[in-house]
Amino acid sequence: MSFFQSSKWSLIAGGITAPSGFKASGVSAGLKPSKKLDLALLVTSPNAQCSGTFTQSFVRAKCINLCLERLSKTAGKVRAVLVNSGHANACTGNRGIDDSLIATRALAEKLDLLEEEVLICSTGVIGEPIPMQKLLKGLDPLVMNLSKEGGSDAAKAILTTDLIEKEIAIEGYLGDRLIRIGGMAKGSGMIHPNMATMLGFLTCDAGLPKDVWDAMIDRVVDCSFNAISVDGDTSTNDSFLAFAQGDILDSQHFNELEIGLKLVSTYLAQSIVRDGEGANCLFEVKVKGTSKIAHAQIIARQICSSCLVKTAIHGCDPNWGRILSAAGSTGIPFSLDEVSIWIGSFQVMSNGQPVEFNRKLVIRYMKEIIKGNNASDEKLIISLVVGRSEIEAIAWGCDLSSEYIHINADYTT
Amino acid sequence: MSFFQSSKWSLIAGGITAPSGFKASGVSAGLKPSKKLDLALLVTSPNAQCSGTFTQSFVRAKCINLCLERLSKTAGKVRAVLVNSGHANACTGNRGIDDSLIATRALAEKLDLLEEEVLICSTGVIGEPIPMQKLLKGLDPLVMNLSKEGGSDAAKAILTTDLIEKEIAIEGYLGDRLIRIGGMAKGSGMIHPNMATMLGFLTCDAGLPKDVWDAMIDRVVDCSFNAISVDGDTSTNDSFLAFAQGDILDSQHFNELEIGLKLVSTYLAQSIVRDGEGANCLFEVKVKGTSKIAHAQIIARQICSSCLVKTAIHGCDPNWGRILSAAGSTGIPFSLDEVSIWIGSFQVMSNGQPVEFNRKLVIRYMKEIIKGNNASDEKLIISLVVGRSEIEAIAWGCDLSSEYIHINADYTT
Repeated sequence: MSFFQSSKWSLIAGGITAPSGFKASGVSAGLKPSKKLDLALLVTSPNAQCSGTFTQSFVRAKCINLCLERLSKTAGKVRAVLVNSGHANACTGNRGIDDSLIATRALAEKLDLLEEEVLICSTGVIGEPIPMQKLLKGLDPLVMNLSKEGGSDAAKAILTTDLIEKEIAIEGYLGDRLIRIGGMAKGSGMIHPNMATMLGFLTCDAGLPKDVWDAMIDRVVDCSFNAISVDGDTSTNDSFLAFAQGDILDSQHFNELEIGLKLVSTYLAQSIVRDGEGANCLFEVKVKGTSKIAHAQIIARQICSSCLVKTAIHGCDPNWGRILSAAGSTGIPFSLDEVSIWIGSFQVMSNGQPVEFNRKLVIRYMKEIIKGNNASDEKLIISLVVGRSEIEAIAWGCDLSSEYIHINADYTT
Repeated sequence: MSFFQSSKWSLIAGGITAPSGFKASGVSAGLKPSKKLDLALLVTSPNAQCSGTFTQSFVRAKCINLCLERLSKTAGKVRAVLVNSGHANACTGNRGIDDSLIATRALAEKLDLLEEEVLICSTGVIGEPIPMQKLLKGLDPLVMNLSKEGGSDAAKAILTTDLIEKEIAIEGYLGDRLIRIGGMAKGSGMIHPNMATMLGFLTCDAGLPKDVWDAMIDRVVDCSFNAISVDGDTSTNDSFLAFAQGDILDSQHFNELEIGLKLVSTYLAQSIVRDGEGANCLFEVKVKGTSKIAHAQIIARQICSSCLVKTAIHGCDPNWGRILSAAGSTGIPFSLDEVSIWIGSFQVMSNGQPVEFNRKLVIRYMKEIIKGNNASDEKLIISLVVGRSEIEAIAWGCDLSSEYIHINADYTT
């Protein structure tokens, strides 16, 4: 991965159980008709610090409320997370909270933990409750299978319409300490800034004070999971949980650790977009020159969310008018006379004036990426300068294809 | 049309030239490769009052600036509008304003008007200038063809990817005066709240004071053209121009006139959505119970813009979870416990609890509408109650189909 070149971090095998102090497992409890793995568990050693980020939607699953309450009550000292896939348990009336309580209580007993030390994340169809008998029967094998090697099974068990697992682990020396960071995620549709049917989990074997860890994870989420869009919709169940456990890290290494956390989170976020429903390519939008970073973010994310930009990219059409039009529709003020646009390395607009460009070459550049292996490192780059400042932001999106329509036109039926 | 039942207004033949005091024409100037009509003209008698509403995008065509300046300079006393279709003349650098000035100057001379009394609207591909020689050659036949019967030709000449013309005229007695209102519109993609690649024109043979007319048109646009969404993108060229000319109307009839203006504008706005790129059905979202009307509007429009809702409707899938999820993602606060949802007359959620419903019947209801003749009166109705107030708003959208992808994946190439 090219983005590792300039950092202290290097890629290693594994995922959430690569750092010390974490065990995981994944089993099939029969929740998914396909009999694929559908129940995952992550357990940390005592004193891990957990920071949680959740959907901003007012319509959210009750398991989110449970997580928020318990993170608050324990000041982030939770020990285990149960994940069930297939049923979002959102908009299921009273069963939403009842079933979340029953599941975490049963698991807490088996793990000999306090109830409030156990969280639950659910993902799947909205409006359908979890088949609780199956889930409860699945807890024993789930606990039995807990191991240092269980990260990969857990990464499989949290998936729904995803085509590929999303996990990563990196390591690097911070001073003379070897630190590892691991992560896994799921999500392929309904992904939008502010998180959406997206579950993400990050583990790290350096300890950090609660306030430092929370602030660090805020920044990390903002430039990774909050910077992606698959279809512009947001979800009821989005959750990102980040655990830090181990001896407290010397503060001189905080910046380097944050770089590692961003690498892992950005990789996972981009993997979600690459695996976007019906997606054939990942594209990256860089926006520079606004007065505030939030403005650059809004413009970049709007371009990534535009159906017209997404279909143009799908059709390998260098239609910069749609890119500019999406930027303009945000309400963020900028002067057209200062706008320059590039598709890849090809400049198509300079200071508000269209630039003569070799359309065939640009189309070839787009076709090579869209026809490539999307699981690879390739991405289509769109760059905009909208003003004179050096402030910039990046967002990621995927093309919009007929396949997306087919997948989504009959998901529940 | 069922929405006429309760009003004084009745449908008549024709469009923008049905009211007295207006002439129009449409010719083929060779701007479109297809040789279809591509240049339209609307001319009013002296003293008409024009109110203009334009795209909110920061990236807008220079013809919009020209219209705004001239409406301001003349206090709305403009006399003619030229419309060219095929080329948006947006993001074309200096040519944007230069060509708009040349075209309106030439037309003003031929019509013996002041330059500032002539407006221009352009629609088509962004980034491509207008073939000016062709446009200028087209002005003579355009002026020659001006007539009371020219409304229909004008309605054809403003179209781009539209499949059908959109025009309407109504009449009704306000006191003992017979008043007529006419309208035409174009637009099928890029339609979103706050207007988008949408052109709309309204004519009325009752005179109104400038301030009354401007305020009335503001309200009319807000509940019609600003309440529709085809693909969530906004455009560089959206314009709505409304002309009132004739003896000043007695103020006791203002309310009744406004009802007529809303009928015409709502019909045109819905026609645009029905003709949405790749659309198979129009759906209407009613939201009730918010603390402010703006909140109900935001929720209704968000549901209409959701790719997941739009694909679910395309697949005749009564996936109310996506409807609720879209509502929740707006950031407008409401309590899930007070949410009830209906698809057609079928209740699917009651006070936050899922309701057992006959899925087959709901699917049949959806299929009948989506398979029907979309140019007809049929629409799929989605109703939400999100609180206890009586405040409500309505928005309209269309399903998202593979055809949309095909149309948009290679529009310029």
